[in-house]
Amino acid sequence: MKTSIIAVGTELLFGQTVNTNASYLSENLNLMGFDVMYHFVVGDNPQRLKDKLAEAFRDTDLVILTGGLGPTQDDLTKEIVAEYMGADFYRDEKVIEDLKAFFERRGRHMAENNLKQAYLPVGCTPLYNDSGTAPGFALEKDGKAVICFPGPPRELKWLFENGARQYLEKFMEKKMCYRVIRTIGIGESDLETALLPLIDGQTDPTIATYAKEGECTLRVASQRDTNEEASAAVDEMTARITDIVGGYIYSYDDEELDEVVVRILKEKHLTISAAESCTGGLFAASITDVPGASEVIRESYVTYSSEAKISVLGVPSETIDTFGVVSPETAEAMAEGLSRISGSDVCISVTGYAGPDADEGHSAGEAYIGYVYKDRKGHVSLDTSRNFRKWNRNYFMLRMLRTVYLLITDRM
Amino acid sequence: MKTSIIAVGTELLFGQTVNTNASYLSENLNLMGFDVMYHFVVGDNPQRLKDKLAEAFRDTDLVILTGGLGPTQDDLTKEIVAEYMGADFYRDEKVIEDLKAFFERRGRHMAENNLKQAYLPVGCTPLYNDSGTAPGFALEKDGKAVICFPGPPRELKWLFENGARQYLEKFMEKKMCYRVIRTIGIGESDLETALLPLIDGQTDPTIATYAKEGECTLRVASQRDTNEEASAAVDEMTARITDIVGGYIYSYDDEELDEVVVRILKEKHLTISAAESCTGGLFAASITDVPGASEVIRESYVTYSSEAKISVLGVPSETIDTFGVVSPETAEAMAEGLSRISGSDVCISVTGYAGPDADEGHSAGEAYIGYVYKDRKGHVSLDTSRNFRKWNRNYFMLRMLRTVYLLITDRM
Repeated sequence: MKTSIIAVGTELLFGQTVNTNASYLSENLNLMGFDVMYHFVVGDNPQRLKDKLAEAFRDTDLVILTGGLGPTQDDLTKEIVAEYMGADFYRDEKVIEDLKAFFERRGRHMAENNLKQAYLPVGCTPLYNDSGTAPGFALEKDGKAVICFPGPPRELKWLFENGARQYLEKFMEKKMCYRVIRTIGIGESDLETALLPLIDGQTDPTIATYAKEGECTLRVASQRDTNEEASAAVDEMTARITDIVGGYIYSYDDEELDEVVVRILKEKHLTISAAESCTGGLFAASITDVPGASEVIRESYVTYSSEAKISVLGVPSETIDTFGVVSPETAEAMAEGLSRISGSDVCISVTGYAGPDADEGHSAGEAYIGYVYKDRKGHVSLDTSRNFRKWNRNYFMLRMLRTVYLLITDRM
Repeated sequence: MKTSIIAVGTELLFGQTVNTNASYLSENLNLMGFDVMYHFVVGDNPQRLKDKLAEAFRDTDLVILTGGLGPTQDDLTKEIVAEYMGADFYRDEKVIEDLKAFFERRGRHMAENNLKQAYLPVGCTPLYNDSGTAPGFALEKDGKAVICFPGPPRELKWLFENGARQYLEKFMEKKMCYRVIRTIGIGESDLETALLPLIDGQTDPTIATYAKEGECTLRVASQRDTNEEASAAVDEMTARITDIVGGYIYSYDDEELDEVVVRILKEKHLTISAAESCTGGLFAASITDVPGASEVIRESYVTYSSEAKISVLGVPSETIDTFGVVSPETAEAMAEGLSRISGSDVCISVTGYAGPDADEGHSAGEAYIGYVYKDRKGHVSLDTSRNFRKWNRNYFMLRMLRTVYLLITDRM
């Protein structure tokens, strides 16, 4: 089904906000088999919105609008859409109740103008909003359909998952099933090359790769007559992918690497600590970002200077003098020292050059990860030869996570 | 001048990439006095691009395109635009040289298809690209103008600042001058209320507020006949703003708070260390994210558990037992312990509940920042009463930065 997305909001045209709603909707609609052909952004201006709505319906059959459903004067999306579709308004009592409950929960007085949100087009499918005040809705006419979402991304996502997705399924000729497989340690082009035999000439299931800085995601999707056939096809393809690149896969359910690592550490009742130099705390921050991380991390260290590596971790100054502060030997000595002072089951360290500048004979992007786990110690050498400081720091952190993941899953 | 932005790229319609180019261009064009009326996104499809180009030119006089300038088959923007404007192509020798130099620098062989990028529309203003291979260009006809940028955001920004901005100035009736003032510790609505006397009925200079999580940015802009008048008007308004909310301002040049803090620490030859609990390393990561931070930070600690606060920092267990691990007393004891073990000039600590769950009698969003600086010690109490873990963690980190900023500028 040919689809357009219209974002309404002057703040988008001022560049104050980025249109992430359009990419979120596009990703999910494509996965459901909808053909997203256009994005539009228009300000809070009735005539221009009317024009774009007409344009969108001229070329596509499903038009999705975001924004302009709130209680204020310049929220006009609902009125313009109802007028275009020739629908009157009714007062939706459930919305009234929801609004009263919403403000009661927050112990706040409900301003009169909020009631504006309780009027919906006659004949619409309401999308009741438990994550905010403005409801969304879907409306059909002459084989064309329009769906209106509020602008705040959190509310839009909630409404998409709690109502809109189900509503949209009736437009799908076939049943769709997909799985998001996450990998780390292999680039997108290498991943595609490795999977070429599976991707080439493949119509269903489809395999799409998405590169994120430092890692790469695979999406396996199938559209069949029944959910059973679709999910069977995805499972079968997933198995074939695993045969080829299983060593790089860390999640079959679109989990973040830090979530996976913390989950496994919990399951195995392991504690972890880090001694970070160039990542400066990013690794500890990513572990502690996972709710419940307190079960697995008690303490962590940022030893940025050579002095700190010596005084805090007890790295022998000879090691630094002999091999250099950015060296496999120093990385391992940091992990060993960390193991002594923290007593954590998994001890991971990193020393490297994030850039932009690096010492003589070294390049930005060079780093070494040291580890001590059970009776094992060792290091991983990294060299991204990139000069983007932020990119390198984040990449080093991800490779630390991957190293821990491989260690605690006995794959390294 | 009425302006449209057309982003070309199927990856945008798949939701794989977010259209940050449109917001970047919109922000800068609005600041230059251009009236951005529409954003369009269209796939790599010649006919649809032609249609949208015609639509954009029907309603606006300046059309800016991004993407589709590369060497591959599906890069069609340049051809479509030249055809629409009725321009032939010429071979630009400077682009050829730039291309050869680009690949030589990287010691890579230049594939033939790269030469495609050296053909530009006759009569255009080339935008030579030192940040990539595809040049941009501007082309005019019958009082309408089009500018084409390559899609990669880094290249687009480089070309905008190194050519496009200058080219666009001739369309500006007046000279534009602006300043970005950054504040921390005051919400957007409070800031607007405080500045209402200045904002109300103000036509020039204009004052716009932009809320970012935890902080708020002010943009003061003026358009006058000369640069001198414009910048004088901005300076005068800046002084009036400073009289009212100067206490919250940390930068008059759109610097990040961590950059400002590291710069001042360097200037004053001060070292800093942190003892982080709920922020789990975010503070250290933000300080070390600033190039050259090694001058000011030698070591930092993540003491997530109560045991670590006791064993690593030497917080008296009685303090935790008596006042609780999330308390002003524990926060101050953490900072004092940190001062003892690190000897850093500025010692800052944080203990709190980021959420989603918190202990009895406490709410997510409650946190205490402790500090020791020179002969001073003390604490800052925070309570965002939010339940968004990521938001809280980041907010706590920003408030730590602000506390350090106020301390080392003797404003607290």
